[in-house]
Amino acid sequence: MSRQHGKQGPQSPQTPAPHALDLPEAGRTELSEAMRAYFERCDERLGFVPNVLRSYSFDAAKLDSFVAFYNDLMLADSPLSKLEREMIAVVVSAENRCYYCLTAHGAAVRQLSGDPELGEQLVMNFRSAALAANHRAMLEFALQMTQAPDTVEEADREALREQGFSDRAIWDIAAVAAFFNMTNRLAAAVDMRPNAEYRRQAR
Amino acid sequence: MSRQHGKQGPQSPQTPAPHALDLPEAGRTELSEAMRAYFERCDERLGFVPNVLRSYSFDAAKLDSFVAFYNDLMLADSPLSKLEREMIAVVVSAENRCYYCLTAHGAAVRQLSGDPELGEQLVMNFRSAALAANHRAMLEFALQMTQAPDTVEEADREALREQGFSDRAIWDIAAVAAFFNMTNRLAAAVDMRPNAEYRRQAR
Amino acid sequence: MSRQHGKQGPQSPQTPAPHALDLPEAGRTELSEAMRAYFERCDERLGFVPNVLRSYSFDAAKLDSFVAFYNDLMLADSPLSKLEREMIAVVVSAENRCYYCLTAHGAAVRQLSGDPELGEQLVMNFRSAALAANHRAMLEFALQMTQAPDTVEEADREALREQGFSDRAIWDIAAVAAFFNMTNRLAAAVDMRPNAEYRRQAR
Amino acid sequence: MSRQHGKQGPQSPQTPAPHALDLPEAGRTELSEAMRAYFERCDERLGFVPNVLRSYSFDAAKLDSFVAFYNDLMLADSPLSKLEREMIAVVVSAENRCYYCLTAHGAAVRQLSGDPELGEQLVMNFRSAALAANHRAMLEFALQMTQAPDTVEEADREALREQGFSDRAIWDIAAVAAFFNMTNRLAAAVDMRPNAEYRRQAR
Amino acid sequence: MSRQHGKQGPQSPQTPAPHALDLPEAGRTELSEAMRAYFERCDERLGFVPNVLRSYSFDAAKLDSFVAFYNDLMLADSPLSKLEREMIAVVVSAENRCYYCLTAHGAAVRQLSGDPELGEQLVMNFRSAALAANHRAMLEFALQMTQAPDTVEEADREALREQGFSDRAIWDIAAVAAFFNMTNRLAAAVDMRPNAEYRRQAR
Amino acid sequence: MSRQHGKQGPQSPQTPAPHALDLPEAGRTELSEAMRAYFERCDERLGFVPNVLRSYSFDAAKLDSFVAFYNDLMLADSPLSKLEREMIAVVVSAENRCYYCLTAHGAAVRQLSGDPELGEQLVMNFRSAALAANHRAMLEFALQMTQAPDTVEEADREALREQGFSDRAIWDIAAVAAFFNMTNRLAAAVDMRPNAEYRRQAR
Repeated sequence: MSRQHGKQGPQSPQTPAPHALDLPEAGRTELSEAMRAYFERCDERLGFVPNVLRSYSFDAAKLDSFVAFYNDLMLADSPLSKLEREMIAVVVSAENRCYYCLTAHGAAVRQLSGDPELGEQLVMNFRSAALAANHRAMLEFALQMTQAPDTVEEADREALREQGFSDRAIWDIAAVAAFFNMTNRLAAAVDMRPNAEYRRQAR
Repeated sequence: MSRQHGKQGPQSPQTPAPHALDLPEAGRTELSEAMRAYFERCDERLGFVPNVLRSYSFDAAKLDSFVAFYNDLMLADSPLSKLEREMIAVVVSAENRCYYCLTAHGAAVRQLSGDPELGEQLVMNFRSAALAANHRAMLEFALQMTQAPDTVEEADREALREQGFSDRAIWDIAAVAAFFNMTNRLAAAVDMRPNAEYRRQAR
Repeated sequence: MSRQHGKQGPQSPQTPAPHALDLPEAGRTELSEAMRAYFERCDERLGFVPNVLRSYSFDAAKLDSFVAFYNDLMLADSPLSKLEREMIAVVVSAENRCYYCLTAHGAAVRQLSGDPELGEQLVMNFRSAALAANHRAMLEFALQMTQAPDTVEEADREALREQGFSDRAIWDIAAVAAFFNMTNRLAAAVDMRPNAEYRRQAR
Repeated sequence: MSRQHGKQGPQSPQTPAPHALDLPEAGRTELSEAMRAYFERCDERLGFVPNVLRSYSFDAAKLDSFVAFYNDLMLADSPLSKLEREMIAVVVSAENRCYYCLTAHGAAVRQLSGDPELGEQLVMNFRSAALAANHRAMLEFALQMTQAPDTVEEADREALREQGFSDRAIWDIAAVAAFFNMTNRLAAAVDMRPNAEYRRQAR
Repeated sequence: MSRQHGKQGPQSPQTPAPHALDLPEAGRTELSEAMRAYFERCDERLGFVPNVLRSYSFDAAKLDSFVAFYNDLMLADSPLSKLEREMIAVVVSAENRCYYCLTAHGAAVRQLSGDPELGEQLVMNFRSAALAANHRAMLEFALQMTQAPDTVEEADREALREQGFSDRAIWDIAAVAAFFNMTNRLAAAVDMRPNAEYRRQAR
Repeated sequence: MSRQHGKQGPQSPQTPAPHALDLPEAGRTELSEAMRAYFERCDERLGFVPNVLRSYSFDAAKLDSFVAFYNDLMLADSPLSKLEREMIAVVVSAENRCYYCLTAHGAAVRQLSGDPELGEQLVMNFRSAALAANHRAMLEFALQMTQAPDTVEEADREALREQGFSDRAIWDIAAVAAFFNMTNRLAAAVDMRPNAEYRRQAR
């Protein structure tokens, strides 16, 4: 599988293409004003624009709806902390062996938890981590949803309630686990490449 | 698993709850003006509001971002026809054994194709259908993404190109297949119930 | 996979072949007297002869032994009702994704239960149906036999006894689940096609 | 799992029960005349009555239909030799890890082939045997039918035709492989015990 | 897959090669003195040199380290009896369908247990054997390690302790089960052939 | 699963136990002279003694035979470079999700290759790495041996020969892949903990 995609993103002649499909990447000036501002906030906070955003930029409506959906899911108020949502993201992505998402969200777990070993453990085998019982239950549920969604039943939701999760929290566990089952597969299908910067963050 | 959820949606005392979590359902008057109009269009065109929308209505921002994401994916211009997108939806949902999505999107395939047997075949085993070679390749790709996303490689994308799919079309195949891997899992995790009306459509 | 098999059954020039192998189909006059009477009873009661019978008709001894075996299993006295036997048939056929058996026995469940949704749920995911505890246990046992027969143990039989099933009933659960693991595979191996009439029954 | 079932077969107080269910076993005098003659032929030729027959003897109609079905399948004229049918039986039973069928039909392969190693290889891993290309294709098809019947397609049948199998032979390959997927599961579900005599045959 | 490897081991022109790779086999005189003595003990006790030793003999250091590792594991003092270690060997090899190890270690179980049926049952399906509760637990652990090592947790070790196994015994269960997961795979990868003599031992 | 094992290794009161079993750890003075020298070389070269060695130290013979076996396999002359052997180690360990081996051998790949991204890619999904064709074939073979050893056949070995691997090299590919299928499982079974130092090496 060649990494030498002929085309180049418009931002810089040497930036590698964010994925394996031949789709045009929007230049900054082609973005809507709001999206340009959002990309600039990424530059400021992360030092780069995540390649998933560059990937969606061939179509303004798709980029808008993805960003709105993602930000509501991962950043809006929730009974789940941002770290908990990132932990789910990594465990689902490990099951699906998604290079992009493990790289990006593994870094997020290392950063948000201040525990670099935890990030590695969730990437490699979440059962090796010393997790609180509620986090363990949360991740077991996310794993079941990923491996065998057809087997989820009321008893599985009840097990989460017994660990103190409200029905609102269960929705968010479900929504985050479901979402990464989407993005893992989109990333795999188009061979999305993670930004190199993630790899060195918070080691 | 009890179907007798204690709570009732606000629309009508006898409407069954759309899923198994105890989350408030927005009444029509609680919806934003735009969303109220959208629900009314559903009533007019389908005769009912799909339960997935009622499910998301506990949170206006989540409902908005889901509707925007879904409508762009399934209804916006695409190299894929609406029927092709629904065929992918059903094949992915069959692999994940999602009762909600098989019911709703199986009806859509029956309706859009005018071929009720095709809808049944995609629900039961898509290999039993007499499909054009490009549709077969499209559905094989969607299945591989569903079963083993970590194994997708350039040769798999190349097989789609050989069937005449552009890179833009491959993105949409990937995006639709990925999306139903999300919604199948959310539906399973919260036990989302399909509207009864779907079952009798286009038989 | 072409559906246009060159040969035609002797009953009618336009009847599609019942499967993908090039085997002669017995005409009515070639059947034994008893079998001709049986086919006529099918015509009267169902409006057609099930394609599985046409499939076996290339060999009178095979047709006889299949019909005798099937009728004893599904229609003779049993601690299991006919509906219960059909429910097992559908759940096993769903696991094996058998288009023929899901079509034919899905219709039987809709008809015998008077509950069309139940038929759909057993085809799509039996865990989505609101089942009595004994039916749930019966179907779980059938599923275990289908997925991992080598793991069945005394504790699994004991779980059926605890739900009120006699050892005689357990034999019949086992025999029906085992039988559809046979016919599902024969149907798949020869691409047996269900009669179109099933699809519209009891919706 | 206790092998000390309290009940005893009527033939002899010390004969162990043929399976784990509490079902009455017919004494010789209770059998129909034809079946009694058949059991006596078993005694003469094998030195014992196979436990599968004792298992079915609680119900005369079931015993009759099983014997008729089995004998047609395994002993009637066929493009497949008896050894070929037994080879399929063992490979399917190995995949399903059926102790009864591996013991009984493993002995049959050793006997019919005059090659005791072949019997062992088919039990342990058929890929370790030096098989003719047509037998290899036949067993691969039987294995595919066993593991993933929903994936069988015209190309798989075509591969058998290319090895010289007629469509009539393909039916028999399919029918035998399908049948052992039934009996393996029935044997597992009721814990059917093979007669001890098989184990020492043709070593 | 041809069994007629062109080359022959140096011991005898008619001895078949022990595996499918073209690697030189050491003649007796090429072995170190200690290893020659060991091979002679094999000749005396078993009547032959196990083909696994002939396989490793292309490299004296590999042969030495394999023999030392193996003999410590299977023959040194241990809370596990030699039979218990052989039972683990067979159950792991059955899961991996290793023709070499099932043949050699199946014979060892028959011999050490004096129960030929036990040897067959462990080869075919260990759940069919009437095992003591501690042996059942031991083999379940070995199977879990084989099928899904990533899922082993403290509760699984605790289940062994509850059956009376010390932590020292658990190490040995783990070490034996792990070892046969190695040798099964090496044997499969090079198509190692078992000595014919095993097959007739202790029937 | 508690990480707070009550016992402590004798080297230092604050060193965490290397695994979850209650087995005595040899102090340096209890080691043989040769092994003490080996541990000291570890201290010098790595800055620590790998926990796998501390784990085996409860028994001098087991420690000796493991070290001899391991060093011959991974460090002795071979047609495979040390990096190639470590690449196999990581890909096998990723399939088995072994936290210990992914941590230790992931670091080795980062170090030996000078390509930290490669180490991450092999941990997460080796298909995401831009590998030479021979390395790709080598790792595919190791994966097949890990997932389905019973399916390896001459054609699979031939595929390696076509990539330029000699039969001697194929033995070593097989031996290394087999070995990590052993150590992954031993590590999982006793919950072996990797030394913390690996995590920061060669990022």
